[in-house]
Amino acid sequence: MADINSKLEIGVTTGPIRGSKKIHVGKNRVAMREISLEASSGELPVRVYDTSGPYTDPDAVIDIQAGLPQLRRPWQLARGDVEEYDGRAVKPEDNGQLGPDRSGGVPAFPNVVRRPLRARAGMNLSQMHYARRGIITPEMEYVATRENLGREMARDLVRDGQDWGAAIPDYVTPEFVRDEVARGRAIIPSNVNHPECEPMAIGRNFLVKINANIGNSAVASDVAQEVEKMVWSIRWGADTVMDLSTGRNIHDTREWIIRNSPVPIGTVPIYQALEKVGGVAEDLTWEIFRDTLIEQAEQGVDYFTIHAGVRLPYIPMTARRVTGIVSRGGSIMAKWCLSHHKESFLYEHFDEITEICKAYDIAYSLGDGLRPGSIADANDEAQFSELYTLGELTKRAWAQDVQVMIEGPGHVPMHKIKENMDKQLAACGEAPFYTLGPLVTDIAPGYDHITSGIGAAMIGWYGTAMLCYVTPKEHLGLPDRDDVKVGVVTYKLAAHAADLAKGHPAAKVRDDALSRARFEFRWRDQFNLSLDPDTAEQYHDQTLPAEGAKTAHFCSMCGPKFCSMKITQEVRDFAAKQNQPSDAFIAAEEAEKGMEEMAGKYRQGGDLYMPADPAE
Amino acid sequence: MADINSKLEIGVTTGPIRGSKKIHVGKNRVAMREISLEASSGELPVRVYDTSGPYTDPDAVIDIQAGLPQLRRPWQLARGDVEEYDGRAVKPEDNGQLGPDRSGGVPAFPNVVRRPLRARAGMNLSQMHYARRGIITPEMEYVATRENLGREMARDLVRDGQDWGAAIPDYVTPEFVRDEVARGRAIIPSNVNHPECEPMAIGRNFLVKINANIGNSAVASDVAQEVEKMVWSIRWGADTVMDLSTGRNIHDTREWIIRNSPVPIGTVPIYQALEKVGGVAEDLTWEIFRDTLIEQAEQGVDYFTIHAGVRLPYIPMTARRVTGIVSRGGSIMAKWCLSHHKESFLYEHFDEITEICKAYDIAYSLGDGLRPGSIADANDEAQFSELYTLGELTKRAWAQDVQVMIEGPGHVPMHKIKENMDKQLAACGEAPFYTLGPLVTDIAPGYDHITSGIGAAMIGWYGTAMLCYVTPKEHLGLPDRDDVKVGVVTYKLAAHAADLAKGHPAAKVRDDALSRARFEFRWRDQFNLSLDPDTAEQYHDQTLPAEGAKTAHFCSMCGPKFCSMKITQEVRDFAAKQNQPSDAFIAAEEAEKGMEEMAGKYRQGGDLYMPADPAE
Repeated sequence: MADINSKLEIGVTTGPIRGSKKIHVGKNRVAMREISLEASSGELPVRVYDTSGPYTDPDAVIDIQAGLPQLRRPWQLARGDVEEYDGRAVKPEDNGQLGPDRSGGVPAFPNVVRRPLRARAGMNLSQMHYARRGIITPEMEYVATRENLGREMARDLVRDGQDWGAAIPDYVTPEFVRDEVARGRAIIPSNVNHPECEPMAIGRNFLVKINANIGNSAVASDVAQEVEKMVWSIRWGADTVMDLSTGRNIHDTREWIIRNSPVPIGTVPIYQALEKVGGVAEDLTWEIFRDTLIEQAEQGVDYFTIHAGVRLPYIPMTARRVTGIVSRGGSIMAKWCLSHHKESFLYEHFDEITEICKAYDIAYSLGDGLRPGSIADANDEAQFSELYTLGELTKRAWAQDVQVMIEGPGHVPMHKIKENMDKQLAACGEAPFYTLGPLVTDIAPGYDHITSGIGAAMIGWYGTAMLCYVTPKEHLGLPDRDDVKVGVVTYKLAAHAADLAKGHPAAKVRDDALSRARFEFRWRDQFNLSLDPDTAEQYHDQTLPAEGAKTAHFCSMCGPKFCSMKITQEVRDFAAKQNQPSDAFIAAEEAEKGMEEMAGKYRQGGDLYMPADPAE
Repeated sequence: MADINSKLEIGVTTGPIRGSKKIHVGKNRVAMREISLEASSGELPVRVYDTSGPYTDPDAVIDIQAGLPQLRRPWQLARGDVEEYDGRAVKPEDNGQLGPDRSGGVPAFPNVVRRPLRARAGMNLSQMHYARRGIITPEMEYVATRENLGREMARDLVRDGQDWGAAIPDYVTPEFVRDEVARGRAIIPSNVNHPECEPMAIGRNFLVKINANIGNSAVASDVAQEVEKMVWSIRWGADTVMDLSTGRNIHDTREWIIRNSPVPIGTVPIYQALEKVGGVAEDLTWEIFRDTLIEQAEQGVDYFTIHAGVRLPYIPMTARRVTGIVSRGGSIMAKWCLSHHKESFLYEHFDEITEICKAYDIAYSLGDGLRPGSIADANDEAQFSELYTLGELTKRAWAQDVQVMIEGPGHVPMHKIKENMDKQLAACGEAPFYTLGPLVTDIAPGYDHITSGIGAAMIGWYGTAMLCYVTPKEHLGLPDRDDVKVGVVTYKLAAHAADLAKGHPAAKVRDDALSRARFEFRWRDQFNLSLDPDTAEQYHDQTLPAEGAKTAHFCSMCGPKFCSMKITQEVRDFAAKQNQPSDAFIAAEEAEKGMEEMAGKYRQGGDLYMPADPAE
């Protein structure tokens, strides 16, 4: 265990992602990643969405002890609605130290802000509040630039998709962002005390986002590892990160994470509150919970998972389930409710929680504490009863202009996924849906990033705004660095598949660029355009390690002698050699085909499914 | 390179799959795998479908040099429609040896049958032919027993699914199998010269099947490795295996594979034919191709991929594609057609190929040579033109009672997947569809088992009968043993997810058993019921290696102090302590809830979305 007084050495992964460089676009210097292609291809560089923050910028100075630059602070101060105040003192129990002894703890983040910001009396800092008053914030402008990525290159592409009633624009204006936030169809999680955060939107009419979970547990993990997991997960594309720490040192771990995070950080505050009462759910009180919310609000948590929909009458509906209540927050609240035989204090005090949210601009992530934990329990009465309550709570939060998203399952067989989306949209007034998977079967522990990636891609297509990743270790153990990467990349591909299927105007740009590179044997371009260039190149090298094989016009499947892609090129060359543009060639062929077909029909006497020449 | 005269040492993986034992059911001794659960659970053993053959049977004697027992030989001889004859002599070019020198080759299989079987003159050996004459073969009986697996345990489960027009029975009778085969909705690939094969069915109203590809290439691989890959892939669940060897030693490699395979073996005969003409597609002739079909028919290949739908007029339709023609067989035929400017000899001689198929009972797998190789090319004119031709050819094959399945794409975004299924069913008269993936995005090389697993699960749900696996190395290199396993398990979970969503009467039995084990912390049962018990246990041990942790009533996510599953148990216990059965408890709670709701409505004046007490 590190000496509490020694400087904490935290190594994080820095440097550009292979084959790309960081660029900054527009007056807000919106971060993007640009992939340049081989000069011989004559293709424009491809810009891709970038969640990785300054860590992939070779020009940035990374100092984990100091935290990231405060991008949003000038915007916040310019609005004139905030005040600095003396923050709540950190208590030993915030870190699971019930006495003054901090041994076994971790060093505190050296650069803690002792005077946080909050709304001045009567003010409301939420992006929704600004939006509803017609104000376009720099956060909304930033989001518009960020989301427009690639739409320039896609101008000539024909829109092609099935969006199930979404309203994805050809071009994202700041006004469009404002309108979506005002209507509650999108959120921009942005706690005033997390000015390091690069603004991003979660909503059905924007790119589908993904979340990665990290955090200490009572059994394993440490703070340096968790900070690196955060940096590592955003490197590969996590749009938000949830710190689900339990056990000790929760407060200090979170401080290190938030100060160094360019993406919104979410938490489940009841986890920390439970630690403060020694793990005894029935000892939880509204006062302890409220104090925990303030603690986390001052640190800069951007969204809170609040399981206020686990109401007393719904709990017995789970008694006949195969897997009962599997949500940790849900079961904590279930235990509390049953022990006291009282309605949930989260439900009872919901409007007070909303007051806190609006003072810091914390978004709600209304937790699905009764989500199904198995195929058998999907779409049951308990689950949907809670969902309707979440819909009621959404409207209560919106009444105070507080941003809301809704958490969803879980374990759901494919044929029951769409019902989840449809019911959520109807019950929650199109508030963004944020689902865990869902897993489409229970029988593949060790592969649940895949069982859930299938469900995630589908529900993302149907309209879910953010997909919470699942790693290969789900149900079995704690994810390590490799598991985090596999989880993130799996969810990134699921989210992208959803964007493609919804007909996002620019999603196809990257697929097409990669496919052209593949077809033309531009191996380096193919690697660099992929979600994980390191793995792509490594797999290629396992079969054909020589440097020359990366410029060779063949691949390991067929070898140099015969290659289907090479033959297709010959088909094109053949067409070209006819001294005709391929269109004319096609026209000529089609005419020939037409004649042949007519002749065939004549011989057949009209039966389309008989051989052209029955005598043959 | 091994000495051609030395005995080939082939090591294959044997022994039971962890936590299960091989059983044989019914008069045909149908192989299944049975997983016994902890005695404390009071649960019945779970029987699962077993493709692994004698290799997982501790009582079986495995001798790779001798091949497997000839399960089907007595059935074949009893039908009285076969004759033994002097087989075609193996030629040097069958193994890519253009001179008499066999150096660089592999030892021939020691136990080669020199006198293969075929239909007596005027006879037809196809299962479809028997089925149409009302004959229930032992193969059909075997399939019925095999498919009924678990239906006994599922008797009390309510059917729940969306089957998109399939006709899955509650119970599979031999007569049902016969009828499906007779109608062409299912096939039982079963070359008379592959008597080692355990009969299985591919059809929309049976369990969704998966195929694994193996094979030498010109660049890498060797015969011992390929035999082990076959054994390894069926261990994890491959229902059929395709030998896609190219380069040298194709004939001998295939002999070793077929003689040791308890699952149907498919090939793409044009690959070998191309090797026989030195890789020059335009030098292919019908005679060389026909001779290759006979060669493979005599060895026992169970299904042939024939790209007879790549007709001359369709080829130019691919010129404007992003990735042209990516099917190897398709591009060979395209090159031949263009070089000669003639219609495909496969199309022209289709009925002659059918004659060969019926003499040995080889099923067609009509190849989609024009399948899309990228998202951009999905569902285009070239693809569907070929599909309609495959529909025409299906009916021509059926006219001779020859079994047919249809190959499908490829790369297809989610919103275009269902159109593939619908068009295939309509064009091909419900002949089984057999798809490669499809991949739902192009941007994740290294993860294409997942991009394709998503599409595979969906198209399997929509009605595809068999899913051709894709490994993580797809597009990049040759799969090794680990890649084969990951590919097979990914496809197994996709196929199972499809069975669940279709409402297969027994699919849920395994999910529910595993979920109960998970809920009750029966870790061993959870591992053993999973698709890959080894990986599940290994992942668990990475976090909690101690033996005690496998019986502990907590997991690594929450640790011993708090556990959501534990709390749910307490919820149940609480309900029980009320001295009421949980039904009564629920009824009481519901009454309370009802009263509360009524009171709430009264106070609200009918507005459901306002807080119950606005003053609060």
